[in-house]
Amino acid sequence: MNLLEATLARIKPVDPALLASAQGLLDNKTKPLGSLGRLEEFARRYAAISGSMKPALGKKVIYTFAGDHGVAAEGVSAFPQEVTPQMVFNFLNGGAGVNVLARHAGAEVRVVDMGVNFDFGAVPGLIDRKIARGTKNLARGPAMSREEAVKALEAGIALAIEAKAEGVTLLGTGDMGIANTTPSSAIVAAISGIGVRELTHRGTGINDEALERKIRAIERGLAVNRPDPAEPLDVLAKVGGFEIAGIAGLVLGAAAAGIPVVVDGFISTAGALLASELHPQVGDYIFAAHQSVEIGHSVMLERIGVAPILDLQLRLGEGTGAALAMMLIEAGVKVLTEMASFTDAGVSEGHG
Amino acid sequence: MNLLEATLARIKPVDPALLASAQGLLDNKTKPLGSLGRLEEFARRYAAISGSMKPALGKKVIYTFAGDHGVAAEGVSAFPQEVTPQMVFNFLNGGAGVNVLARHAGAEVRVVDMGVNFDFGAVPGLIDRKIARGTKNLARGPAMSREEAVKALEAGIALAIEAKAEGVTLLGTGDMGIANTTPSSAIVAAISGIGVRELTHRGTGINDEALERKIRAIERGLAVNRPDPAEPLDVLAKVGGFEIAGIAGLVLGAAAAGIPVVVDGFISTAGALLASELHPQVGDYIFAAHQSVEIGHSVMLERIGVAPILDLQLRLGEGTGAALAMMLIEAGVKVLTEMASFTDAGVSEGHG
Repeated sequence: MNLLEATLARIKPVDPALLASAQGLLDNKTKPLGSLGRLEEFARRYAAISGSMKPALGKKVIYTFAGDHGVAAEGVSAFPQEVTPQMVFNFLNGGAGVNVLARHAGAEVRVVDMGVNFDFGAVPGLIDRKIARGTKNLARGPAMSREEAVKALEAGIALAIEAKAEGVTLLGTGDMGIANTTPSSAIVAAISGIGVRELTHRGTGINDEALERKIRAIERGLAVNRPDPAEPLDVLAKVGGFEIAGIAGLVLGAAAAGIPVVVDGFISTAGALLASELHPQVGDYIFAAHQSVEIGHSVMLERIGVAPILDLQLRLGEGTGAALAMMLIEAGVKVLTEMASFTDAGVSEGHG
Repeated sequence: MNLLEATLARIKPVDPALLASAQGLLDNKTKPLGSLGRLEEFARRYAAISGSMKPALGKKVIYTFAGDHGVAAEGVSAFPQEVTPQMVFNFLNGGAGVNVLARHAGAEVRVVDMGVNFDFGAVPGLIDRKIARGTKNLARGPAMSREEAVKALEAGIALAIEAKAEGVTLLGTGDMGIANTTPSSAIVAAISGIGVRELTHRGTGINDEALERKIRAIERGLAVNRPDPAEPLDVLAKVGGFEIAGIAGLVLGAAAAGIPVVVDGFISTAGALLASELHPQVGDYIFAAHQSVEIGHSVMLERIGVAPILDLQLRLGEGTGAALAMMLIEAGVKVLTEMASFTDAGVSEGHG
């Protein structure tokens, strides 16, 4: 049994009795029943995943997975491919959006090269899990081999397992890869069966012409590759990406290790969707950071069975939304662990 | 000229040139144009209000205003009136929802007794601005006199002016007062002219019978008092509350002093609405923390001209939503002050 199979075998549903215990504690806090809304959901789920009614708020890490895409050759992005490695250096120097927001949230950013089309050599701080220098062009054939897909997933899984051993209590996902909304839209189209045109948006901000090229590239990719919607590994290999596979692996590893994982926006959710299709209980461990501007995002979130925490019209990726959502999830946990109960505070309860 | 008139005379619109300068800086950060969505709005507005392109993130204070309501006698709340002073002690002991969330956000909570129906004597930490021991029953006549309304507004204004002198850079509002969704619904009904039934919700969680009593109490209050919608002071005096007046005053003072102010949920927004009706530029200084579950809330936000930052189904008040939103506003400011530009980072720009 390989690491992927072993990981899938380890994933269990979150215990409903723990969810109920946490809600019972929340219901005794000095507030009207349910009046902290989704913060109570965050608290309940975090506690149940952690297996503790006094869950620790320990180390938070966002893994930002980077990879390039052969389909960029179809003219589907507003940015040249050289921006992927440039942004990797920006992450390592702490100047990118995700660095700023993660610092604000008290989270560490770790950058993983899953398949950037650039030879970094040895760069301090960069986690090298490169599968290849970019995927192949999915509009012309499979983006990667099935072996590469498994290897990329397992790289993500291994990072989650290492994080657990290190005492990380909250994981986040992020992505960087010029053209990567294209494979993400292709994944949701392949799995949902919904038309490409209905699921495909402007990514980082392309014009009408580029949007048409993008839609045609995805349609061609699906026609040429015929990914099997019932086989997430087949979808990943044929129309996915290396960073998307790393994200899917991190989510699977988090579910297996019992760590809550905050999934960023559109690209990260494509990875989470693949993880969720590989195992039906994965959604129990996922917090959806935000509602992306990308139109295929809602379809993916509904299929996973999670609701977005924020709606701030973000469309940057990198893990920026995950960093922001982490602050709100931790706020919920503190409601559980720090708020006074009616008895503690000598406050009269309501009569409903 | 009294303090209220002097404050209204000081309020100026936020400078559009500063908003444009801030957006220009944001457009040079290493991200696709506009891709940080509302974080960019927060950054732009905060910078323009502060009058600096490198605005300080200094001390944050949430003022939680407490007051009681004669209309509680109509059976409009699920909680007894004794809960108002009990919760004041809970705030002072640091055990309430707003304490937990403000600590998480790095903000200080200050509790102001505007009119609680309880004799606190000298309690360390409690700011005594008591106008009276609760308002009169608005269903039977005016809640307070016009002089009391002005005095309560000026108490809030003075707190904002003192906060400015102390170096506070971000203000938040909060409320505590059993039955206070009733005057809040009455205020929005009086000002908007929309029917009471369409604007009135379950507050902390009342049943159908209590909801009917609440609607009838508000309808009777509007019929008996006939508040003039063009006269915000008249509306406040006849169907408002002391804590709502304190909030309105804090918002006016913030606008006059040039401090951004984060307005919490339904009750705080009723205060902000009165402030905004008193001066049309007040909305420039307001950040709306969240979308409340209360149905009259959207009407008020639209009238003020602000969009809510969060939608977490909160309905606790106290300033809990304001504490959470502060973290997101500061995240936006850090995008402006900490992110690398394309030139700094040597990253290629997109072609749109």
